[in-house]
Amino acid sequence: MMDYIKVPMDIEKKSFEIIGEEMGEHNFSEKELLIIKRVIHTTADFELKNLTYIRDGAITSALELLRKGVTIYTDTNMAASGINKGVLSKLNCKVECFVSREDIAQIAKERGITRSMAAVEKAVEEGVEFFVFGNAPTALFKLKELTLEGKANPKFIIGAPVGFVGAAESKEEIEKLEIPMITVRGRKGGSNIAAAIVNALMYMITR
Amino acid sequence: MMDYIKVPMDIEKKSFEIIGEEMGEHNFSEKELLIIKRVIHTTADFELKNLTYIRDGAITSALELLRKGVTIYTDTNMAASGINKGVLSKLNCKVECFVSREDIAQIAKERGITRSMAAVEKAVEEGVEFFVFGNAPTALFKLKELTLEGKANPKFIIGAPVGFVGAAESKEEIEKLEIPMITVRGRKGGSNIAAAIVNALMYMITR
Repeated sequence: MMDYIKVPMDIEKKSFEIIGEEMGEHNFSEKELLIIKRVIHTTADFELKNLTYIRDGAITSALELLRKGVTIYTDTNMAASGINKGVLSKLNCKVECFVSREDIAQIAKERGITRSMAAVEKAVEEGVEFFVFGNAPTALFKLKELTLEGKANPKFIIGAPVGFVGAAESKEEIEKLEIPMITVRGRKGGSNIAAAIVNALMYMITR
Repeated sequence: MMDYIKVPMDIEKKSFEIIGEEMGEHNFSEKELLIIKRVIHTTADFELKNLTYIRDGAITSALELLRKGVTIYTDTNMAASGINKGVLSKLNCKVECFVSREDIAQIAKERGITRSMAAVEKAVEEGVEFFVFGNAPTALFKLKELTLEGKANPKFIIGAPVGFVGAAESKEEIEKLEIPMITVRGRKGGSNIAAAIVNALMYMITR
């Protein structure tokens, strides 16, 4: 029989220790470090230490929203499913992802836009303030447009679309808005990273 | 108004072109390349070109299982949710992930093991042949044990746990079994990558 650590919290603790040892010098605050480490933990990619941008005040804004019990919009089901549901419900928060709904698919098809764009419009209609993007550059562009038009009022954004067409640009564009945000710059990102950032923020309150 | 590509299939096609241009020389077969490119597409991480191990005959075995309509076990809900459900149902396949079930949590707690381990035991009991691991080294170790004990009979394995404690070792161990498999070696991996590999395989049949 093989010998291996079987207790999840021990595995996570040990992982975070290793990440701390290997990540080298940094200027992150204690809270920022919790985010950076969890992002590296979920990807084993130390490059994300340099790609993850945490705007001053962003963590405070996110925690305020989480403490009041907020609806979190995610652009994919995958990001939604990566968010710790036990902790989410303890905080009286919930996750909404409209992207696979039949009505959203229909709207997208009729208008020749992505389902992600139609979904973000729906989220804005419903007054969502906490936005999480791990996949869809088009949704992030759309949120910027709706914000500039005065239709959307995001209070906190996680911008982490991944990819080769529009992803990096979508994050550059959203950063032009003066809104509390955390982004993963360049091509990298992903639903797993977006969810990890949400979890890191929630754990700051619950652990 | 910003100008950006809004048609999902165009975005994907363009992305794959860019990946092909940038990935450099390789010896992958046409089908292997579809997997490698989709893995890079989902992470923007070209290092995965060198970390992804596709065993000879693994793709053929996976496609046979998918064609007959198989149950795909995933170690996380996140991997399950990353699998294209429309294509899955077109193939008469389904995804099962036991990890968040109440009975599995109870078993894990009583025995002091991870929920992932309890979940893989359940999958084995139910005769699952197609295993997908994107997160839990312990589940991969457990599947190896059950296979060596003659209790499990995996026909195809995707081994892509990510992390710093046990992940790399879990993939080294599973590779010792003479079973068709695709692994992501070293610390890297993840539910997103595991799901991308499943999707790449399914698309070989449906596209």
